[in-house]
Amino acid sequence: MFVHQTTVRLHNTDAAGLLFFAEQFRLAHDAYESFMESIGYAFAPLIRRSEYLLPIVHAEADFLKPLLTGDRLEIQVRAEKIGDSSFTLGYTLVRNGTETVGTVRTVHVLINKRIGESISLLPELREKLETIAQ
Amino acid sequence: MFVHQTTVRLHNTDAAGLLFFAEQFRLAHDAYESFMESIGYAFAPLIRRSEYLLPIVHAEADFLKPLLTGDRLEIQVRAEKIGDSSFTLGYTLVRNGTETVGTVRTVHVLINKRIGESISLLPELREKLETIAQ
Amino acid sequence: MFVHQTTVRLHNTDAAGLLFFAEQFRLAHDAYESFMESIGYAFAPLIRRSEYLLPIVHAEADFLKPLLTGDRLEIQVRAEKIGDSSFTLGYTLVRNGTETVGTVRTVHVLINKRIGESISLLPELREKLETIAQ
Amino acid sequence: MFVHQTTVRLHNTDAAGLLFFAEQFRLAHDAYESFMESIGYAFAPLIRRSEYLLPIVHAEADFLKPLLTGDRLEIQVRAEKIGDSSFTLGYTLVRNGTETVGTVRTVHVLINKRIGESISLLPELREKLETIAQ
Repeated sequence: MFVHQTTVRLHNTDAAGLLFFAEQFRLAHDAYESFMESIGYAFAPLIRRSEYLLPIVHAEADFLKPLLTGDRLEIQVRAEKIGDSSFTLGYTLVRNGTETVGTVRTVHVLINKRIGESISLLPELREKLETIAQ
Repeated sequence: MFVHQTTVRLHNTDAAGLLFFAEQFRLAHDAYESFMESIGYAFAPLIRRSEYLLPIVHAEADFLKPLLTGDRLEIQVRAEKIGDSSFTLGYTLVRNGTETVGTVRTVHVLINKRIGESISLLPELREKLETIAQ
Repeated sequence: MFVHQTTVRLHNTDAAGLLFFAEQFRLAHDAYESFMESIGYAFAPLIRRSEYLLPIVHAEADFLKPLLTGDRLEIQVRAEKIGDSSFTLGYTLVRNGTETVGTVRTVHVLINKRIGESISLLPELREKLETIAQ
Repeated sequence: MFVHQTTVRLHNTDAAGLLFFAEQFRLAHDAYESFMESIGYAFAPLIRRSEYLLPIVHAEADFLKPLLTGDRLEIQVRAEKIGDSSFTLGYTLVRNGTETVGTVRTVHVLINKRIGESISLLPELREKLETIAQ
């Protein structure tokens, strides 16, 4: 698995005093970006130069514990499924090294920009995803 | 169903040029807030004075079409399930009155703040939810 | 002046119970987008097709009153200054039609993408800005 | 000065491909939270237990360079002014250790919650602020 460290910030919370639910998806995406950077797929050049799109087509999350400003989180990223043209990432949010406080799942599809259709995952991307497969 | 009108704004998008996926959850929550206000449950007094919490314990979304800055959306809110202490809302995002561009689902649980446990939905809340039941 | 109506949403607030300061800039930008759309400069086509950039080079805000989830705001947009290649917009946030709760100012510069330098405001943009000049 | 490290994330950008201006205020606030934690003023307990409020009453920023997803930033925090009941923080955003890409300034006032009026800065807060005074 890939591990990303983060901290809940004030702007992630709302007036109820806790993490706003949609922010858990943001935090998970930060971990996804870190993972992608770590395997050589930094987003800025990908977006500018690439002939591919990699949209998220489905996302879901469970919110297990209330999260406060300043909470230190470890986000563990795993490849739950690697299909032909898509893959599913699972994220586990762990507070203080021991307490699972939430989970996220995102499904990504590789699209050829020009033809607008899904295509098989590039072999090098597939290989990298397999390093964090469960 | 309850209907909420909104517009995709620049800050909802990211450098890939389209709506950032987590923002679809925000837009759905805006619709939820509008619905709650419409049935007499404005958030500010609820949060300040209430002996209840109504956290979201699960959320999921499907992203069907790319969304651009300026897109006009109608968000339709329906109560998909009304349980004893929880309820599930379904949101359908419709562009230009005809095109379904995404869906969201959120699961809410009513908690008694003092005892920290789920309790039965208040009868008046249940009744209001039933007006948007499928 | 141009007038934009909005509502403070839960995700605009933070755990202190009030609008998170940076969100006031977002709300002002929503008003700016509405104004630009109203004069024929919708952002999505502008970003995709245009040979121009219109970055914000300076922004400032005063936060006069605490804002709560559900507060109805009218944002008044005025052109405070129209220069050769830049213009300054001023925004006044008014709650419930009478109470000024905050102000924002943004400075925009027109840039030619290809040469990367500021250029004179297009006559039609200047003309439209003059309709909301103080 | 106090130094905070961060990375521009995809959700900080917009469809124009660059950091959305209001996000620079968020990033600065993250640095402020880190500083406050480092001097013993973590936000979560402050908000819950404190008899004080410390709202931002003014903020401004200059946007000097376009920022991309993945850009590594060092945010330097300095106390520009320490008054009787208020203080001003200045933030300098530096990319790759050498390039100043933006600045932010925030003005904070200490308020007694019960009486709703500004009060003199607590001596221990003043002392800590002086450690990052220019």
